Amino acid sequence: MRQSNLSIDGTALWRDLMETAAFGGTARGGIRRLALSDEDLQVREWFTRTCTALGCTVGHDSMGNQFARREGSEGGLSPIMIGSHLDTQPTGGKFDGITGVLGGVALLRALHEADARTRHPIEVVNWTNEEGARFTPPMISSGVFAGVFTEEFALSRADRDGVSMKAALERGGYVGDERCGAHPAAAYFELHIEQGPVLEAEGCTIGVVRGVQGMRWYDVRVTGQDAHAGTTPMAMRADAMWAAARMIDAVHAVALDHGPDGLGTVGVVDCRPGSSNVIPGEVTFTVDLRNPSDHVLEAMEADFRTRITDIAAQCGVTAEIAPTWNSAAVHFDPACVDCVRESAQGLGYSMRDIVSGAGHDAAYVARILPTAMIFVPCLGGISHNEAESAEPDDITAGANVLLHAVLRADTRFDRA
Amino acid sequence: MRQSNLSIDGTALWRDLMETAAFGGTARGGIRRLALSDEDLQVREWFTRTCTALGCTVGHDSMGNQFARREGSEGGLSPIMIGSHLDTQPTGGKFDGITGVLGGVALLRALHEADARTRHPIEVVNWTNEEGARFTPPMISSGVFAGVFTEEFALSRADRDGVSMKAALERGGYVGDERCGAHPAAAYFELHIEQGPVLEAEGCTIGVVRGVQGMRWYDVRVTGQDAHAGTTPMAMRADAMWAAARMIDAVHAVALDHGPDGLGTVGVVDCRPGSSNVIPGEVTFTVDLRNPSDHVLEAMEADFRTRITDIAAQCGVTAEIAPTWNSAAVHFDPACVDCVRESAQGLGYSMRDIVSGAGHDAAYVARILPTAMIFVPCLGGISHNEAESAEPDDITAGANVLLHAVLRADTRFDRA
Repeated sequence: MRQSNLSIDGTALWRDLMETAAFGGTARGGIRRLALSDEDLQVREWFTRTCTALGCTVGHDSMGNQFARREGSEGGLSPIMIGSHLDTQPTGGKFDGITGVLGGVALLRALHEADARTRHPIEVVNWTNEEGARFTPPMISSGVFAGVFTEEFALSRADRDGVSMKAALERGGYVGDERCGAHPAAAYFELHIEQGPVLEAEGCTIGVVRGVQGMRWYDVRVTGQDAHAGTTPMAMRADAMWAAARMIDAVHAVALDHGPDGLGTVGVVDCRPGSSNVIPGEVTFTVDLRNPSDHVLEAMEADFRTRITDIAAQCGVTAEIAPTWNSAAVHFDPACVDCVRESAQGLGYSMRDIVSGAGHDAAYVARILPTAMIFVPCLGGISHNEAESAEPDDITAGANVLLHAVLRADTRFDRA
Repeated sequence: MRQSNLSIDGTALWRDLMETAAFGGTARGGIRRLALSDEDLQVREWFTRTCTALGCTVGHDSMGNQFARREGSEGGLSPIMIGSHLDTQPTGGKFDGITGVLGGVALLRALHEADARTRHPIEVVNWTNEEGARFTPPMISSGVFAGVFTEEFALSRADRDGVSMKAALERGGYVGDERCGAHPAAAYFELHIEQGPVLEAEGCTIGVVRGVQGMRWYDVRVTGQDAHAGTTPMAMRADAMWAAARMIDAVHAVALDHGPDGLGTVGVVDCRPGSSNVIPGEVTFTVDLRNPSDHVLEAMEADFRTRITDIAAQCGVTAEIAPTWNSAAVHFDPACVDCVRESAQGLGYSMRDIVSGAGHDAAYVARILPTAMIFVPCLGGISHNEAESAEPDDITAGANVLLHAVLRADTRFDRA
């Protein structure tokens, strides 16, 4: 069989998704599978067993990242890696992360059943503790892999019961001899549900992910003067909530003015003293600004700061802006992105370029390897929720794009 | 001495204020004197003793309202009443309410020391539980007096320890034989600190209170859709907090558009789910609209409703408006108000007409008796706070206006 005719067994992939969903399955159809919990150990065992049956050798590194390796035909080439994560949020869904790992398994199955041989070895990786739900921060093991965090830092992170990541890895037997990050690779591909509403709304099957948007977080504190709502004329007020309301509207305006990709969200508002007939004297709120371009994000921040300052002056209050987080934009490797785009085109799927709004293992891996991602639609954009849902046909399509993107990369890359 | 030459002994009035402030005095210079507490019983005893020494008879009705009566020269006339309250908030100040009662005592002293005789009897009343801090609602006993509440309802109200108002009155020996409300009177005057910043800001000594503004309260619930702040484009959001922010700004605009007396306040805001990177799906907030004219307040409500509906439609959310309180405007008796205005003019004090933003016993008494109020400035408009403060000269001026307003009413009213 010519490699260009290879395709994913969608039925088997869906069966794998539903079968593994039993490890930590919840009554509401979701999954609770915290990293290195008993349920996670069960799915890891399933991964090892299944990939071994598909002719792979399965190992893990010092952070417990699992690698299922199918050898290639040419010696001296590093593997093309495919991956995501099998851990979930405490009330997570059946598709976030899992689609990427089992999509990789489906790819291994396609190669295995056709007895096809790639030039590069192919490896499917299951990154430990991507969600950050048990050990913070999220994406901790792909972060160590990419040199973002030290292994010492990561292993010292403790869950709410005080169990360190090191202890949890030891308990599961997942402290590998290979130092995390020492694993060579030629490129990295990750299939994931969008976790947003764009593809579904536009009727697109495939999102060609160009990168991950930059993100900046701020805490804003507005200080006015609390006073009696019945005795203080409008002109004599320093109403922190009125000022904050205009600022929240301004955050929205900043996003629209840097559209269509600018995002601005105020998710937390605290209004004090919090009494119906007292003019609020202090309001704090969070601001989340995002843009695929760090340059535009910088302009958004400047715009935001100017507007806040102006509104504070107009409303007779003071405002302090404290940056709390800053994550630079990630631009995926153009050659890898081309492999994805051409594969989707070649397979005839409806598609669009997209930028990831959420963080993924690929965002860290992209720091050290040519990387790209593939998105497929999810119902209503809902994720991190037991109601998370996706269509079998879309999952299959995504895995087919993954397969052919990897095959394209296999012919184009020659990385030792 | 001609009555027009009578004046208040400001030193004695200030001494009374400072002396009684010891009953429940706090370390921070405020007073904690909840209705019918030991401290309140102490100040009530002081009131009885002091007024008796000034030639009055002191009694109380079935709600424990105390009346200190100085007889008049003409038989068959009902008393002109002066009053306010001696109870305080849990961390109250030395002037709210107390100024009105002790201002009345100072008036009794002026008459007593000059051996002046009014036509009507003069009565100074101390209304029980005005603050509502121990038994809700506030102004409960003046409310019973005016027929707003039944005595049965009022007596059944319990404090946080489950002690009923009836039990508290019995404990203090304040269940009088006279049914609350059966007490005849010709007119009512109340001296009070402004509890707002207007007089101080304008350098006015006397506020001629024309009435109490109308007030309407609402709960607004905005329902959108919570979604991921990183993956949901601006155009696909139903951001309840953005919509609420524009609505809060609109509440402010409604007040300004019905100025200078319109007031609009959002004091409580609850934003859910309340996470930095989640677009809020539900926001509730309170709205407090006030105006001295019920007609204008009606127009403000209509304007408010239209704006909320429009903003909800523009932002793709739904909004429900639930009225939670409605208090009609009170217009004081023009003849009584004239007595106050002419007295302030005659005494040469700087003055302005004003409408009360807060509730007072006078607001209820005005339902059954010709009524007016006098305001004096308080520092920064601060009240219901241990930091509440007022100048001795202003207090004296207010008591002088009270004295001469009563003397004017005494010549003009002939009410049995």
